[in-house]
Formats: sequence, structure tokens, C-alpha cells
Amino acid sequence: MRLVIAVVQDKDSYRLSEKLVKHGFRATKLASTGGFLKAGNTTFLIGVEHDKVDDVLALIKESCHTREQTMTPMQPMGNNVDAFVPYPVSVQVGGATVFVIDVEQFAHF
Amino acid sequence: MRLVIAVVQDKDSYRLSEKLVKHGFRATKLASTGGFLKAGNTTFLIGVEHDKVDDVLALIKESCHTREQTMTPMQPMGNNVDAFVPYPVSVQVGGATVFVIDVEQFAHF
Amino acid sequence: MRLVIAVVQDKDSYRLSEKLVKHGFRATKLASTGGFLKAGNTTFLIGVEHDKVDDVLALIKESCHTREQTMTPMQPMGNNVDAFVPYPVSVQVGGATVFVIDVEQFAHF
Ligand code: NI
Ligand code: NI
Ligand code: NI
Repeated sequence: MRLVIAVVQDKDSYRLSEKLVKHGFRATKLASTGGFLKAGNTTFLIGVEHDKVDDVLALIKESCHTREQTMTPMQPMGNNVDAFVPYPVSVQVGGATVFVIDVEQFAHF
Repeated sequence: MRLVIAVVQDKDSYRLSEKLVKHGFRATKLASTGGFLKAGNTTFLIGVEHDKVDDVLALIKESCHTREQTMTPMQPMGNNVDAFVPYPVSVQVGGATVFVIDVEQFAHF
Repeated sequence: MRLVIAVVQDKDSYRLSEKLVKHGFRATKLASTGGFLKAGNTTFLIGVEHDKVDDVLALIKESCHTREQTMTPMQPMGNNVDAFVPYPVSVQVGGATVFVIDVEQFAHF
């Protein structure tokens, strides 16, 4: 048994939850903050058999990898009047930090 | 040293806390959600010596094992008028998922 | 790779965060309660290379070790009128409980 501890952005948390359930993996979620991420994030605890670790990592990568996203800011970004003109900017979103830990003993009551 | 990570239903969280304190074990509690449990749950982190792991597992089992509970719903359960008549139903409550992890190094400052 | 799990008082949480960032360590923070601490505490998850574990432990010790602090209660401490006279008392604050766990596999997406 392994315990996968994955820290993901809140933005990707719902998508990851859905994929895990769909593939039959159980996860416990903890609200977390910090890392270099300014936004809130979610820490997933996922108990999984040794030979399924790669499957879980693939789902995490698929749901949460760092990517560029184009967004059009709706809010003025400064004091300059020009800043009120909305124009698309590219921002980096997502990203997951994952620790895989060995489990000595597992129990379910 | 071992770290026991136990995910238990909020319903059983207080009882487990009390038992742990009574038996001299220290626990840190984290609010968590998910698993197949719809309701909120609590993740306990319990640092414990190797030879006390079984004692902690026994306390968790005692406090949190899955069991049938008869409850009488106070709220109507549907649109049908019959549903307003309270009658006892049996629901499954409790259950704990427990990971025991080896601790390389322990420190207390 | 190691995972350092540190439970510290909320009081010391900000100072520890700052030191970790300043020294280039990333941490994820989880709100937690319990232990023998009455007050809220914060659980830090810090992923770190083997040879940096001692550095992280030193930062935790520096930021969070148990210490006496003199405080002057602003609130009456009992029914006795004398209790309204503010006088400095020494209280114990801080303290950290730290588990170092081996990480089988680490990934960042
Ligand atoms: Ni295993
Ligand atoms: Ni040990
Ligand atoms: Ni390692």
C-alpha cells in the first residue's frame, strides 16, 4: 500500500476528485494554503495499491499540470486609464506537488 | 516511531479524541472531506511508539467502526404525504480508514 | 526526498512560513487543532532533500520552540477584585512536534 499526498490548486481540485472517483480511487481532501501558490489549494490523501500508483499519478498530471491559460481581466489592473481596456493575457495555472509514501499497515474498520 | 493517519467521520471524532487523551496519546486533528463519505470527516495524526500502534488501532476501531444505527427522520423525506409520518430507519454510520507510516526521525521542540 | 510534517502553534506559524520561504523551502499549510495545545495550530508539510532535513529542523526549532513569555492579562482572571489589577505573568508558549517521513517517489507536474 502507498499513500499519495498531492497538493493541487483549488481550481483543479474538483476535476481531480471526479477522475479519481470515476477510476475507483478514494481520496480524502484537506483544505490547505501556501507553497508558492498564492491561491488556496487542496491536499489529497489517496490510499492506493503499489501497482496503481502510476495510474493515480497519471490522473493527477492530467487534471492538474501547469499550463498557460488566456484570460481577459475584468478588473482594472492599475491607475492608468489604459488598464481599463480589457485585453487577453496569458497566465500560468495549475501544477501539482506529489509525495508517494510507503504504508506500513493499512486498516479499515 | 510511527505516524498513524486516521480518517474518521465527524460524528465519531469527539469520542476518539477523548479516548486517545484518556490513554495518553496525542493527536492533531485536520478537518477533511471526501472519501465515499458524504459527510465531513476528520483526519487524525497520531505519533506513537511502534509497540503502541495496536493499542491506537484498537481505540480507533472501538470508537469509529462501521455500524448500523436506527434513526427516526424528523424531516419529510419526499413529496409523498406518507413520508411525513416518522418511522425508524436503519442507517450505516461510522467507519475509519487508517494508514500507519514509519517515521524516520521525530523531534519535539 | 523527505517529507517533514510539523505541527506548530498558530502564534509561530507566520514566523516559520517567512523563514522557510527566505531559505528557499516550500511548505503547504493545513489548519489543525488539538494535541495538548488548547489553541489552534498549523500543520506544515515540507518536501525537502535528505541533506537539508537538519536545516529545516533548525528553522522550526528557531521559530517555534517552547519558551516562557511574560504577558500582562488585560482581563480579570477570577471573581476576586484583586484579580482586576493587571500584573505580569509568565506563560509557556510555542513548541513544535515534528515527524520526518521518507518519500518513495516525488513528482511535480
Ligand atoms: Ni505497501
Ligand atoms: Ni520508528
Ligand atoms: Ni528520499
